[in-house]
Amino acid sequence: MFFASDNGSGAAPEIMAALAAANEGYARSYGADALTAAATTLVRQTFEAPDAEVFLVTSGTAANALSIALMTPPWGAVFLHETAHAAVDECGAPEFFAAGAKLIGVPGSSGKITPGTLVASLDRVPPRDVHSVQRAMLTLTNLTEAGTVYTPAEIAALTALARDAGLPSHLDGSRLANALVATGASPAEMTWKAGVDVLSLGGTKNGCIGVEAVVLFDPAKAWEFQLRRKRAGHLMSKHRFLAAQMAAYLQGGLWLRLAAKANAMGARLAQGLAQVPGASLQHPAPANMMFPAFAPGTHARAAARGAVYNPMPAPEGKEGARLVASWSTTPDDVDALIAALMP
Amino acid sequence: MFFASDNGSGAAPEIMAALAAANEGYARSYGADALTAAATTLVRQTFEAPDAEVFLVTSGTAANALSIALMTPPWGAVFLHETAHAAVDECGAPEFFAAGAKLIGVPGSSGKITPGTLVASLDRVPPRDVHSVQRAMLTLTNLTEAGTVYTPAEIAALTALARDAGLPSHLDGSRLANALVATGASPAEMTWKAGVDVLSLGGTKNGCIGVEAVVLFDPAKAWEFQLRRKRAGHLMSKHRFLAAQMAAYLQGGLWLRLAAKANAMGARLAQGLAQVPGASLQHPAPANMMFPAFAPGTHARAAARGAVYNPMPAPEGKEGARLVASWSTTPDDVDALIAALMP
Amino acid sequence: MFFASDNGSGAAPEIMAALAAANEGYARSYGADALTAAATTLVRQTFEAPDAEVFLVTSGTAANALSIALMTPPWGAVFLHETAHAAVDECGAPEFFAAGAKLIGVPGSSGKITPGTLVASLDRVPPRDVHSVQRAMLTLTNLTEAGTVYTPAEIAALTALARDAGLPSHLDGSRLANALVATGASPAEMTWKAGVDVLSLGGTKNGCIGVEAVVLFDPAKAWEFQLRRKRAGHLMSKHRFLAAQMAAYLQGGLWLRLAAKANAMGARLAQGLAQVPGASLQHPAPANMMFPAFAPGTHARAAARGAVYNPMPAPEGKEGARLVASWSTTPDDVDALIAALMP
Amino acid sequence: MFFASDNGSGAAPEIMAALAAANEGYARSYGADALTAAATTLVRQTFEAPDAEVFLVTSGTAANALSIALMTPPWGAVFLHETAHAAVDECGAPEFFAAGAKLIGVPGSSGKITPGTLVASLDRVPPRDVHSVQRAMLTLTNLTEAGTVYTPAEIAALTALARDAGLPSHLDGSRLANALVATGASPAEMTWKAGVDVLSLGGTKNGCIGVEAVVLFDPAKAWEFQLRRKRAGHLMSKHRFLAAQMAAYLQGGLWLRLAAKANAMGARLAQGLAQVPGASLQHPAPANMMFPAFAPGTHARAAARGAVYNPMPAPEGKEGARLVASWSTTPDDVDALIAALMP
Repeated sequence: MFFASDNGSGAAPEIMAALAAANEGYARSYGADALTAAATTLVRQTFEAPDAEVFLVTSGTAANALSIALMTPPWGAVFLHETAHAAVDECGAPEFFAAGAKLIGVPGSSGKITPGTLVASLDRVPPRDVHSVQRAMLTLTNLTEAGTVYTPAEIAALTALARDAGLPSHLDGSRLANALVATGASPAEMTWKAGVDVLSLGGTKNGCIGVEAVVLFDPAKAWEFQLRRKRAGHLMSKHRFLAAQMAAYLQGGLWLRLAAKANAMGARLAQGLAQVPGASLQHPAPANMMFPAFAPGTHARAAARGAVYNPMPAPEGKEGARLVASWSTTPDDVDALIAALMP
Repeated sequence: MFFASDNGSGAAPEIMAALAAANEGYARSYGADALTAAATTLVRQTFEAPDAEVFLVTSGTAANALSIALMTPPWGAVFLHETAHAAVDECGAPEFFAAGAKLIGVPGSSGKITPGTLVASLDRVPPRDVHSVQRAMLTLTNLTEAGTVYTPAEIAALTALARDAGLPSHLDGSRLANALVATGASPAEMTWKAGVDVLSLGGTKNGCIGVEAVVLFDPAKAWEFQLRRKRAGHLMSKHRFLAAQMAAYLQGGLWLRLAAKANAMGARLAQGLAQVPGASLQHPAPANMMFPAFAPGTHARAAARGAVYNPMPAPEGKEGARLVASWSTTPDDVDALIAALMP
Repeated sequence: MFFASDNGSGAAPEIMAALAAANEGYARSYGADALTAAATTLVRQTFEAPDAEVFLVTSGTAANALSIALMTPPWGAVFLHETAHAAVDECGAPEFFAAGAKLIGVPGSSGKITPGTLVASLDRVPPRDVHSVQRAMLTLTNLTEAGTVYTPAEIAALTALARDAGLPSHLDGSRLANALVATGASPAEMTWKAGVDVLSLGGTKNGCIGVEAVVLFDPAKAWEFQLRRKRAGHLMSKHRFLAAQMAAYLQGGLWLRLAAKANAMGARLAQGLAQVPGASLQHPAPANMMFPAFAPGTHARAAARGAVYNPMPAPEGKEGARLVASWSTTPDDVDALIAALMP
Repeated sequence: MFFASDNGSGAAPEIMAALAAANEGYARSYGADALTAAATTLVRQTFEAPDAEVFLVTSGTAANALSIALMTPPWGAVFLHETAHAAVDECGAPEFFAAGAKLIGVPGSSGKITPGTLVASLDRVPPRDVHSVQRAMLTLTNLTEAGTVYTPAEIAALTALARDAGLPSHLDGSRLANALVATGASPAEMTWKAGVDVLSLGGTKNGCIGVEAVVLFDPAKAWEFQLRRKRAGHLMSKHRFLAAQMAAYLQGGLWLRLAAKANAMGARLAQGLAQVPGASLQHPAPANMMFPAFAPGTHARAAARGAVYNPMPAPEGKEGARLVASWSTTPDDVDALIAALMP
């Protein structure tokens, strides 16, 4: 009954097998190996982006912060949802990597920026005013931090507004697979076809032990990215072990199968919650993460019954929670949790 | 015949087994798990340092740069050998993490700082001069970048000079195990007993897939370190997979056995080189890394015979190389390399 | 009819005379001169703070950014009003100087933080969460950017809340003299007696050519401040010319006399505006700066009649403006402006 | 008898008069004023560079550090003489402004880089190696820190080597006027005609109270420079007072007349030193600064007789000194110093 985070699950068997296979013999370090080349090719194929440049790192914070630093000058304004991971959960990593850029929290219900809130936020940072930071970039998150999802059309609408203001767009896809499964969109449709210039593609939460890819759909800044990655200590020496994970993750669509399992368990969970007296979802829950509010006393009772999840803010008189299903969650896990939540 | 780097070897079977074992079930992320606690305890026991704080990261550059940033203000002068990894092979990572601190390259033959060269370098940075950066710290490397080794007494002499000038000392131990085996010193003797305040303890090069520990013998700045690590994207979410490596690495002295194998192959290599006409070592080679100079034509001939190593600068009329043995190098590998180097 | 900014006025005759007097003979550079010692003594006496350390710089942005960098680590959260100069008008200088700290904009009407809005903002940054930036400091502005004023009691209430949360407090006093005149408070009452730890004391806007003092009421970090100042290019070599301004500014209370003139012209302006049909003040205007809203068409008419001021946002159907009186504004200037604003 | 630094002299009467004249009436702040436009035009005319962009700051450290940050990425290697002001006398300002770039000290006798030492230093930073910082720029100083001078041909030779390696060149001209007078070169010949892309043009040391101009001969990065300047707190609000100094400084060649006076006093000083038993110059002294070595006991005797200068390192058994003449040094000052140095 572990629903605290998809980070709490282990690695899929296919990923572990790939690590073991990668351990044979010697390989050039720092990415000059065959597995890295194979992983790069797989990312390009998966995203229908033959010219994209692909770089692997070990954490989502690194993927995001390196991407942001590539896309904004130190005096830039980075527009992102006010609850985005990069805004509130990375201890200022974007500001560190980007030498002091300023994050502008954009409001929007259920974790989603809207065209209206984006335009209002852009208007707060007037262009060509030397006393102000300068509009630099947009970064979206899909799945959002609220567990909701942007459709490709919604992303395209936001990146178009950004582009009209001269700004490139980044997508934090630490749970991209879950968003793809939830919408039925293809990887290309959700990213570069929707105006995304740089993607953080998550593997860790969805069945890897620790790998994220940064995908530059425009390769112009690829060399700069490599220097930034090295300088940040994020160029792994035994790079084949990162590449093995990413290759196995994408090979044959494993990543989407794993996400489909997680999302199915999310759906089962949502259905179950509907039966829990006094429980309600604070946001739509189309994928594997949801934020219910419970009747008072639920947390203590569920914990005593072995449920593990994180409490969250909730409306007055309620107890809030975040519940996350992962690739390894089973129907029995879900049913046990629902039972534990019952009065 | 792979002697390009110990980074080119894979992981030891014990490490792979530990990863597989760690993959069972669920675990709290970001280090709040039992394996992390076990790894911490093992580091403390290994170094006879019950109060030390231990933090895991995935790269040596991260371990060094985070350590340095912890120990110097942005206006600090960091004294290190002019060929140290942090000085020349990390793309300015220390300067990035330390917000612009200045590295002062200290000379010294065969990769080793001496009391004389350290004092001369310290004297170049006068204290309490507002126009100058301020003396901040010493960082040593053992094994050195030249493959040589400091004894505990030599380290103690240098850290004592630093301490007299008010400076704490860091040790880059990406190959610490090889240095311990080469000298017979204990982990404690080579580190805190010799005046080392902060240690980068390497696992990656010596049989892990990617893990380094930063050991704070004085825990006063432990919380700051954690914030710096998170902010740099180096706090792994599925932290148990880092901890599993480090725990298995130290458990039962595996790390020293692996290093002993590498050093033994280094010794066999040095003996073999003595038989190669025109070959000579440019530095003493007490451990697993050496820098021979060969007669002209050797590189092409050896490469054609399947030898893999990195060319290096050499005296006029010679061909230089770096040869590194690892935990997985076999006597046959060594003998084949020697044969490949023969006229 | 220049009301665009108090920065548009020149220097008071006493300041120009002091510069001329300072130009005699030779003096040690970088602050090792008699005028600097005299200015320091005058600041200490003026603020009844014999142990304070005093450092001069040439711009308010430098004074604020250096102060903030002294008081927050790079991973710190800096609480300030969402319209504060440091938040919106310094092109990210605080983030630059503080190596990427995060500014948290606190709301509050008419440019003023209240205990309620401060507590709510503090609560958004939970302590001891490694994923979040850490609460670091409070910075207030008096006069505020809205032209309103904090009383010493209001400042004390806010700094007490900060102190309870472990945070020191900074005061941006680029218009401190105007605030003192408006409230009748003494320099000490408005600063360290109200819990202010570090003060940016403005001279430029109030009759100098370019000098601000940073006053450290607790001298513990004085040496660090000096290094930060030098490293930022803000340690002037011919320092006597900064010191001469600051000494003349404080000598005999000149600064308060200049501010009293500016405030008196502000009061005359407010009275005059009350006669302008359709004009109203958007905030209280106790000192020398005010933000009226005018009937449509006013800007064009006033500009055609020679009035110089900056347009500002205003409610729908109105034309907003910022009007600033300075030490050199005359009653005739004010009366001419009022006439120019008339239908 | 003040020879400690040209920073110890005051401002020329013409500069003080210009400040007084600039103090009339009101002016737009932050450089949007007529005096700033006039100063810009004068710099362009003086340097025969009609397209150059010109920005004023208050210190040489700011001019240098902002210029360097404009020309190097954070992972760049900045080549400069190992004794350059930016290397040793700015408390790491270039590293701060350039977010951690690395300064590479190039050797060379008497403060001068030679083509040979530059090439050797460039070779130490191989291009396209992700583990290393990247060659980014050259910065020269003229007058050098040793008081010697580069001819335009020498500068052109070095900037050509830099350009061949893809690097732009900066010139620290805090004493450019003295170098022009010493060589007879025109401002254009010494700068852009010799391959200089960005110039720090000093005013402070040569008769101003505090103003330096950064001249971008290629205006492409002018807007970025303005943002960097603002963000660093170096955009002065009452900008007319900077502009007034620079305009008066260049008007009618005042700057060269002031430097000619200083250099003439330098020559008189050198001649006089030749009469002092046991005194010798450690470097050629073509301008206003020189580094003599004296017989033991000289310092104490001279100080007792009222001479003020800074001691410097010297060969064993000698007493070293730096002597700097300024625009205000008189023949009597020089003769008195020589007398004070006599046995």
